[in-house]
Amino acid sequence: MKLYNFFRSGTSHRLRIALNLKGLDTQYIPVDLRTEQHLKDDFKAVNPQMLVPALATDDGKVLIQSPAIIEWLEETHPSPALLPTTAHERAHVRALAAIVGCDIHPINNRRILEYLRHQFGADEAAINAWCGTWISAGFDAYEALLAQDAQRGRFSFGDAPSIADVYLVPQIESARRFKVDLSRWPLIGAVDKACAELDAFQRAAPTRQPDAG
Amino acid sequence: MKLYNFFRSGTSHRLRIALNLKGLDTQYIPVDLRTEQHLKDDFKAVNPQMLVPALATDDGKVLIQSPAIIEWLEETHPSPALLPTTAHERAHVRALAAIVGCDIHPINNRRILEYLRHQFGADEAAINAWCGTWISAGFDAYEALLAQDAQRGRFSFGDAPSIADVYLVPQIESARRFKVDLSRWPLIGAVDKACAELDAFQRAAPTRQPDAG
Repeated sequence: MKLYNFFRSGTSHRLRIALNLKGLDTQYIPVDLRTEQHLKDDFKAVNPQMLVPALATDDGKVLIQSPAIIEWLEETHPSPALLPTTAHERAHVRALAAIVGCDIHPINNRRILEYLRHQFGADEAAINAWCGTWISAGFDAYEALLAQDAQRGRFSFGDAPSIADVYLVPQIESARRFKVDLSRWPLIGAVDKACAELDAFQRAAPTRQPDAG
Repeated sequence: MKLYNFFRSGTSHRLRIALNLKGLDTQYIPVDLRTEQHLKDDFKAVNPQMLVPALATDDGKVLIQSPAIIEWLEETHPSPALLPTTAHERAHVRALAAIVGCDIHPINNRRILEYLRHQFGADEAAINAWCGTWISAGFDAYEALLAQDAQRGRFSFGDAPSIADVYLVPQIESARRFKVDLSRWPLIGAVDKACAELDAFQRAAPTRQPDAG
């Protein structure tokens, strides 16, 4: 499989973690967002939405949108499972993932920040305040849900990584970049530490990618 | 089941359509976003994220985040199916849904527009331009994917409504409110017409809800 991605993209990072947890190797195809390679015709032919990541499967099909690709991975490579077994628990883990995947990440995306800079004259302080607002609102909710879960182990759900962790860790990385003080969310911090011990998370880190720089 | 929602909220609208397609009745509990009922302690006790919708199931559990609730509905009430049967087709339908659910709706959400108004001084023209930018980018991608799908029938996938339509129709409603010219996306327009013929979509419309006004 070919993974079209960018080292610093949060959705690319998320998908790399999921692929690593599933034990799947892919060919890394960098798409440089800084030089707007994602807006060129070559990449538009791969993904009409012109966003990373995209995953080209071995039968020549292209999957887009990391939430859809991660569900596809879970269906086609069920072991190790990244979702629990009961419907209610699956809804809980998917809700944690969606807090990050819908209500934090897309709002702090590169294209959004560019719009704020160019149309509203936002400077770096204003950008950090914007990102900090949505990260804080989402992490407050995430932390509250972790605190409510009496059965929880070392990860966002139970004692093994789930798709919730797959979404959370790249968002923590992004929060650090936007200078958000993470000490306000100790449970999230502890989950981050547990994930950081795992090879699958370590190898997915932006700094470890061939296009990092 | 109790459905905490708001007539004009796109994620509430989306969930109402899915519940109707599954033939499920719920008790409608309005949460008035205009008077910030969602930020009050009563509702925070239901959903720590303080966003609608939330679904309280008959065993007293509360599900949050419409993408997670819709997957839960599909798992617990599989008929009629709102996802196709093959993993690749499911990934395709989920990608269409995610274009709306991640890359359009959350960016045009009420809390975001309030931030733009208060922190960046955005007026109504600037708000409409902001919303129009993200709706257009997402609908361009959605339309391109519809055009690429040679097997497609009257809906976003095949000849029956799927979760893609569940996400799309409320976003079209929102696009009209932000004065986006929809004639640019004829395939999306045709899907909207096909959905509008169905009772499940008609009954979910914002204007048909008890709190509409």
